[in-house]
Amino acid sequence: MSIGDDAALFRPTSGCDVVLTCDWFLEGTHFLTERHPPASIGWKCLARAVSDIAAMGGVPKCFLLSLALPTSHTGRWLTGFLQGLNQAARQFRCPLAGGDTTRRKNILINVTVVGVVKTGFALHRSGGKPGDIIYVSGTLGEAELGLRLLRDGAKKTTMQNPLLRKHLYPKPRLKLGEWLAEKKLATSAMDLSDGLSSDLPRLCDASGVGATVNADQLPKVYKSFLTDSANALQLALHGGDDYELLFTVSPNQARKIPRAFRGVALTAIGEVTNERRLLLASQGKFSSLAARGWDPFRLAKKK
Amino acid sequence: MSIGDDAALFRPTSGCDVVLTCDWFLEGTHFLTERHPPASIGWKCLARAVSDIAAMGGVPKCFLLSLALPTSHTGRWLTGFLQGLNQAARQFRCPLAGGDTTRRKNILINVTVVGVVKTGFALHRSGGKPGDIIYVSGTLGEAELGLRLLRDGAKKTTMQNPLLRKHLYPKPRLKLGEWLAEKKLATSAMDLSDGLSSDLPRLCDASGVGATVNADQLPKVYKSFLTDSANALQLALHGGDDYELLFTVSPNQARKIPRAFRGVALTAIGEVTNERRLLLASQGKFSSLAARGWDPFRLAKKK
Repeated sequence: MSIGDDAALFRPTSGCDVVLTCDWFLEGTHFLTERHPPASIGWKCLARAVSDIAAMGGVPKCFLLSLALPTSHTGRWLTGFLQGLNQAARQFRCPLAGGDTTRRKNILINVTVVGVVKTGFALHRSGGKPGDIIYVSGTLGEAELGLRLLRDGAKKTTMQNPLLRKHLYPKPRLKLGEWLAEKKLATSAMDLSDGLSSDLPRLCDASGVGATVNADQLPKVYKSFLTDSANALQLALHGGDDYELLFTVSPNQARKIPRAFRGVALTAIGEVTNERRLLLASQGKFSSLAARGWDPFRLAKKK
Repeated sequence: MSIGDDAALFRPTSGCDVVLTCDWFLEGTHFLTERHPPASIGWKCLARAVSDIAAMGGVPKCFLLSLALPTSHTGRWLTGFLQGLNQAARQFRCPLAGGDTTRRKNILINVTVVGVVKTGFALHRSGGKPGDIIYVSGTLGEAELGLRLLRDGAKKTTMQNPLLRKHLYPKPRLKLGEWLAEKKLATSAMDLSDGLSSDLPRLCDASGVGATVNADQLPKVYKSFLTDSANALQLALHGGDDYELLFTVSPNQARKIPRAFRGVALTAIGEVTNERRLLLASQGKFSSLAARGWDPFRLAKKK
């Protein structure tokens, strides 16, 4: 890799395919400058894109940063942003390889991450089969609740709050993705960025299947963390920004899925079905599950 | 390559490095929605990024598109944009492999292009040596003059104008870049996106050298195309958006550089010097050459 030329050079690992993803991270759409610390914006813009590499079972190798900034943000804000970005780059072993910068009234960020995956081993959204068991990693809804805390004016002293931390500094499930790919355990996979009720239909569409989700089995936020207005089930179904992995496993492989992988819980939350619709089961009753996850207008609306 | 997963897969050619570049293309900064036809915006956002691949001697393979649009532009405007983009993708043999879309008040575009180049054959900015001859392809200043025509309200009927065409539908010098790399003819190279007076210092900085440019030898816009206020020399020195290649050749290789390559003129315009400054020579007199090329505020200022 080289910085300073018109383009960056990257030597792919032999026997591997290259995995490529790009992600917007825009002021007002994906973050609020007056609420999100610059270090979190730096961390998260890379973490989100790296999470797409994790979802494919890939190993990140380098990234390109496109950054547009107002002059007012080239000093302290930029220093904080780069601190968070560099920390993420070190943590994910994914160094900066190039990019493009320009001036602009709003902060605009676009990140391209390049990774590798052994040829033939990549995870796809499209392999889910009826009867497969649906798994998620971690806890669902934490990041959404963290965003609410932030919106309600959480102080710096509460940054130790795990919900806030998950919203501000998400950790893509790289090792889990790699392991699922390497062992050929998942029939399909994707990352949860917009919320289960929005993302699961995408996996089902790609696989040409439906799904039943068991509400009682969902790994929800502990009650003690909940504020009065929040509902753990609604958060788990519709909360975005968790960057957990959603994957399906054929029943005869399910015994190979541990209850936790490297300290992160793996939970069976439902089953792939033949009928192309999404159902939510709870205490023996079934209801239809509609997409109510993240949309790009969310932050702006609630500002 | 696959669309529909979290990330795109790309199988690199064996014995090749991967070349990566990303480029902003933003409303108000890089184009004016009320002036630039949507097809030109589609063509040019890809052409600019592909030009960076040409500058490295690479062959483009696929691209990722990040697009943010207002709802008002998802109909006819988007159709025109995609027409131009698809034409460019076919022309450059560089298909869409993935991307990210969102809604936004302004049109924001970011393009990542992935290419390949034989390992060890990539062109760099850093290899220029004192005594090397400096070349450019094509004619300099045409695109800038085309932009002025557009700003002054050129009608659709004048789209056949070659200056306007060069501004709206630039053609990256892919075959030239490939040939220079393959034959190891250029000691350094880059593309001219911001104008000679802004880009040549970048090549000189990377190579740790200076340069003398011969004003009389510059391939300038024909006088018959010039409007009263335009000056061909100023356009050639400072005009942006030409996407021609700038490259240096050691004196003992210079006889291998033809006067034209596939119909595009190649012109020796000066010499690399030991002293780290830029001089402009004209009829035996020398003056200092200062950067006065493109800056991101240009379009906005003159609106």
